[in-house]
Amino acid sequence: MSKFIDVHHGMVGITADQLQQAHDADLAIQGEERVTFEHAWADPDTGVVYCLSEAPSAEAVQRIHERAGHPADEIHAVPLDV
Amino acid sequence: MSKFIDVHHGMVGITADQLQQAHDADLAIQGEERVTFEHAWADPDTGVVYCLSEAPSAEAVQRIHERAGHPADEIHAVPLDV
Repeated sequence: MSKFIDVHHGMVGITADQLQQAHDADLAIQGEERVTFEHAWADPDTGVVYCLSEAPSAEAVQRIHERAGHPADEIHAVPLDV
Repeated sequence: MSKFIDVHHGMVGITADQLQQAHDADLAIQGEERVTFEHAWADPDTGVVYCLSEAPSAEAVQRIHERAGHPADEIHAVPLDV
């Protein structure tokens, strides 16, 4: 398992409720790909959302995000953290 | 105080030691701007580093990063998180 940060663009104006609903949609199915979404942060002004996850692969992260209706624009493995 | 995620590009090949040293350089002076760097994640393959902080402003985050020798390429306020 590795850590991943994925990025969604174009989410200008996202609300707290919308972020929660999107996150809940991921959580509902993440186990099917052995992904754990740990945290998400959103900037409504520039429309960027960052998600931190632990997963077997970037592809697994993307499959969950796609099925939940919000494919990521970038997914980075982040093997280093402090 | 608000949460911020800042992004550094061009860090291809960054090592765990280099990430730790960069983070330590921020921590050493962050109090002068009332910034708290909470976490940093790095992708050595694509050279992206993400930093999560709590700070009075994006400018305060940038001043610390600049003085520590690694100005951020993007800084996003992330008022929403789950």
